[in-house]
Amino acid sequence: MAETALIVGTGGGLSASLARLFHKEGMRIALASRRPENIAALVSETDANSYSCDASIAEEVATLFQSVSDEIGPPDLVVYNPSYRARGGIADLDPAEVMKAITVTCFGGFLVGQQAARSMLKAGHGTILFTGASASVKGFAKSSSFAMGKFGLRGLAQSMARELAPQNIHVAHFVIDGGIRQPNDARGNQRGPDGLLEPDAIAQSYLHIHRQQRSAWTAEMEIRPWVESY
Amino acid sequence: MAETALIVGTGGGLSASLARLFHKEGMRIALASRRPENIAALVSETDANSYSCDASIAEEVATLFQSVSDEIGPPDLVVYNPSYRARGGIADLDPAEVMKAITVTCFGGFLVGQQAARSMLKAGHGTILFTGASASVKGFAKSSSFAMGKFGLRGLAQSMARELAPQNIHVAHFVIDGGIRQPNDARGNQRGPDGLLEPDAIAQSYLHIHRQQRSAWTAEMEIRPWVESY
Amino acid sequence: MAETALIVGTGGGLSASLARLFHKEGMRIALASRRPENIAALVSETDANSYSCDASIAEEVATLFQSVSDEIGPPDLVVYNPSYRARGGIADLDPAEVMKAITVTCFGGFLVGQQAARSMLKAGHGTILFTGASASVKGFAKSSSFAMGKFGLRGLAQSMARELAPQNIHVAHFVIDGGIRQPNDARGNQRGPDGLLEPDAIAQSYLHIHRQQRSAWTAEMEIRPWVESY
Amino acid sequence: MAETALIVGTGGGLSASLARLFHKEGMRIALASRRPENIAALVSETDANSYSCDASIAEEVATLFQSVSDEIGPPDLVVYNPSYRARGGIADLDPAEVMKAITVTCFGGFLVGQQAARSMLKAGHGTILFTGASASVKGFAKSSSFAMGKFGLRGLAQSMARELAPQNIHVAHFVIDGGIRQPNDARGNQRGPDGLLEPDAIAQSYLHIHRQQRSAWTAEMEIRPWVESY
Repeated sequence: MAETALIVGTGGGLSASLARLFHKEGMRIALASRRPENIAALVSETDANSYSCDASIAEEVATLFQSVSDEIGPPDLVVYNPSYRARGGIADLDPAEVMKAITVTCFGGFLVGQQAARSMLKAGHGTILFTGASASVKGFAKSSSFAMGKFGLRGLAQSMARELAPQNIHVAHFVIDGGIRQPNDARGNQRGPDGLLEPDAIAQSYLHIHRQQRSAWTAEMEIRPWVESY
Repeated sequence: MAETALIVGTGGGLSASLARLFHKEGMRIALASRRPENIAALVSETDANSYSCDASIAEEVATLFQSVSDEIGPPDLVVYNPSYRARGGIADLDPAEVMKAITVTCFGGFLVGQQAARSMLKAGHGTILFTGASASVKGFAKSSSFAMGKFGLRGLAQSMARELAPQNIHVAHFVIDGGIRQPNDARGNQRGPDGLLEPDAIAQSYLHIHRQQRSAWTAEMEIRPWVESY
Repeated sequence: MAETALIVGTGGGLSASLARLFHKEGMRIALASRRPENIAALVSETDANSYSCDASIAEEVATLFQSVSDEIGPPDLVVYNPSYRARGGIADLDPAEVMKAITVTCFGGFLVGQQAARSMLKAGHGTILFTGASASVKGFAKSSSFAMGKFGLRGLAQSMARELAPQNIHVAHFVIDGGIRQPNDARGNQRGPDGLLEPDAIAQSYLHIHRQQRSAWTAEMEIRPWVESY
Repeated sequence: MAETALIVGTGGGLSASLARLFHKEGMRIALASRRPENIAALVSETDANSYSCDASIAEEVATLFQSVSDEIGPPDLVVYNPSYRARGGIADLDPAEVMKAITVTCFGGFLVGQQAARSMLKAGHGTILFTGASASVKGFAKSSSFAMGKFGLRGLAQSMARELAPQNIHVAHFVIDGGIRQPNDARGNQRGPDGLLEPDAIAQSYLHIHRQQRSAWTAEMEIRPWVESY
């Protein structure tokens, strides 16, 4: 029977690559986005079910999982991508924007992770993948809102991994270190061949983690371009 | 001229030890708490100014700093202690409680850190200290809300340290690993002599960090009892 | 044209699984061991070239690479597995045994890594994989010799990854956290199904890292059983 | 009764600052160096006993501790400073130089740590401090020999801390991140005031760790100038 994959936070290059790869692997695809109208082409290309969902609102996330479960089955694989950041020095940040950054990047991850856990605990198996960044492991200057959100998401992922692995649910966190290539990405030329992260290449590692046999699971994996300084 | 020390989140054993030590060192003490009526004895003992403040509300934090500045001078040293956690497995947590945990533990740290930074950037110097826990660096099973809050606070501290150190503002994060002894602490007997963290002993390290000459600053320091397993 | 894979330190379960998987993938296999007579069956099964080599002796490692290069071509993929440890409390260890642990676990990794780098810098590509352990990232009590060797090996891997990635050479370090199942492993029953690391499962992740497209490389990956405490 | 402090690896600015500070604190000072003739002025200034010792030779280290113990009493505080590095890209390094780097930086730390542990286990107390560097936690390109040595030393320190803390022996590792100012240091001007680590300032933190009450010990502490990028 086909697996169901739910990708939360679509729009960017990584989400689309994940959807395409999982579809190619025979999974049924659910795409959740705040603006599903923007991903109509991807929905069509991957035979996906599309859902409107603000991942930072508990009720919407609960409804999302109920709908996915009803329509294409409880998800075997859930990916959480959304993030938001307020830019600027610590003295200049708008507290409301900082709260939004924490809420979207970290609290939304909790809401989605919780619903995924509930569903997978019932099913007895599953994979939950969180997309982090270099900001997940290093707090850069003038990037405090992103550091708070991404560090917090990593703490969530570690805690869930320790709790859920012995329940046969594989939780993993990715440290994506570097820029992901966008369509017609002007940065590409400056960085030379493969100087930006190819989203299709990242997706291969997400799939690998999902396919790992449970005697040899990975809870964290860092990914960066060959030419990245770090 | 005497320094001003502002301790946010008073009530626990560490805050009281910090207040007493800083007072003994000749600093003017400001104590901010949601329930200042509970710390009347400490206020009196340390000649402190006491302030009512919910550290997770931006306006209250702004008012706090204005009042401290007006009444005993802009703080040279600010300590952020508050934390909150929702206990339970990932599937059972109340999202509102999780949001409260993130807000109190991490967002409140941002609000206080931001006001401290604004004040200290004007003054041209200062120290900002954040109290973390073992949960700041390791996400334990069934402790996701605490992990999110404390990881996030650490991300904030790192980002602020990188931004503010070259502005002559010393930001440091403490990883307190172990239980702090409370008055009449029943755990003490089970753990033997010095088996729980003595708050007076921790306070000595906070003071040391504050006193470090700027050519040799520490941005993170872990502290645990000699008999602690980790 | 077929790739050449050189596996240094054969005998254990992981090396055999790597040899079988790489052979199945069409690579030519070179197996280096201090006692090649012990791996005759594996050599035969994987159509491998077998080499006698003490990886902690510079001249033997140089000869190994020369021979492999001459006989089946310069290696596209090199894996370093050997380790040795002296057991006991710090006060009781024999310094000669500790030096052996450091030499086998870390210095041998340097010697092999250096020869691999020289060969791959000429070829313009390659992958170098180092096998670490939980002792690579945490120094356990009464395990100082293993901690020195494995921490040191990780330092080597990080340094080589930063230097060689921009030269199109992929260096990665694995943190293997848990016991690898041996043939007829008595521990298996106590730990339940998949409670020990299956070497075939680990090998899949080594292969995945080797196959990663260079825009999305991983420099460190941790692997442990689903039921492992950490 | 006065404490005895043994500093291994003297000559540099940090060792001299430690000797002066510990002397000022009333300790009896033992200075061990491969070339004691170079530190005659420091020996005189700190009323020290001076010892010739190659810290990477087991017998010499054993003799050192015996002599110190006989002449000024078993050490209450031992500091290990020596390090050596071979510079260059991985392909160009001389294996003998790499082995020397590992031996001096890490194996010597083991030899000194072991003798200190034996002596302090008998005495029932003591402090052992290891001097690390940014290379202890990050393997920089073209710095593999230093990374191996310093990572390995950190692994040793962690293992010893976990084993010996419950025996009332405080083991700590310092991550010194940045250049230490030398007498007439030309770099000072480029980096502005306090842009290089003042050895006297570092020494204050070593002393603080030694003085920590055992309910609140620190096992690792990072130290860097306010203007350091990291």
